[in-house]
Amino acid sequence: MPVRIPPPPYWAVIFSSQLRSDEPRYAEMADRMVRLAQTQPGFLGVESSHRDAHGNGITVSYWESVEAIAAWRQHAEHLVAQQLGREVWYQSFSLRVARVERAYDFCRNDKA
Amino acid sequence: MPVRIPPPPYWAVIFSSQLRSDEPRYAEMADRMVRLAQTQPGFLGVESSHRDAHGNGITVSYWESVEAIAAWRQHAEHLVAQQLGREVWYQSFSLRVARVERAYDFCRNDKA
Repeated sequence: MPVRIPPPPYWAVIFSSQLRSDEPRYAEMADRMVRLAQTQPGFLGVESSHRDAHGNGITVSYWESVEAIAAWRQHAEHLVAQQLGREVWYQSFSLRVARVERAYDFCRNDKA
Repeated sequence: MPVRIPPPPYWAVIFSSQLRSDEPRYAEMADRMVRLAQTQPGFLGVESSHRDAHGNGITVSYWESVEAIAAWRQHAEHLVAQQLGREVWYQSFSLRVARVERAYDFCRNDKA
């Protein structure tokens, strides 16, 4: 799951959330949003965790610019998802926009 | 799990990893590192996901400064953990240091 991205600088949106309940429609919508994000201008990659038994999960998406993040935030379908998230699905969340300054990737070489 | 932190700017270390195998000693060490990080100067908070069936997980720690991050990276016990991680535990990982510029927290008010 760790994604390779060209060297920084670029931007990260760190979304940490706790669901109120494990609602099937949520998973559908979340999958749809990830697929849709991947088609947006300036999208670089996404890392998303499994949710634990308490409904906690983390998704980090990476973007070329703050303008690309702003455009995605205003995407019509995404706006609907955001509203449903606040009204129905999330108990709490933290959303952080951060500028990635340094990055290091490790991948095991299994030749040995 | 979403953590509240005073307003930005501050720094995030985004660590996305895939384990080679589910080794009991890894979980012990990972817990120990989280507890130890929490005692370091400049530590602000941590969000850590459950690992999925493929060993993928995300941990994001938050820090007051890059100096605090550098000091933690050089902590003796942490250096040992990093070496074990590369030699034994991780199939791959991505480590990113990012400056958090904006943050938004949502918490449902369950009065209704």
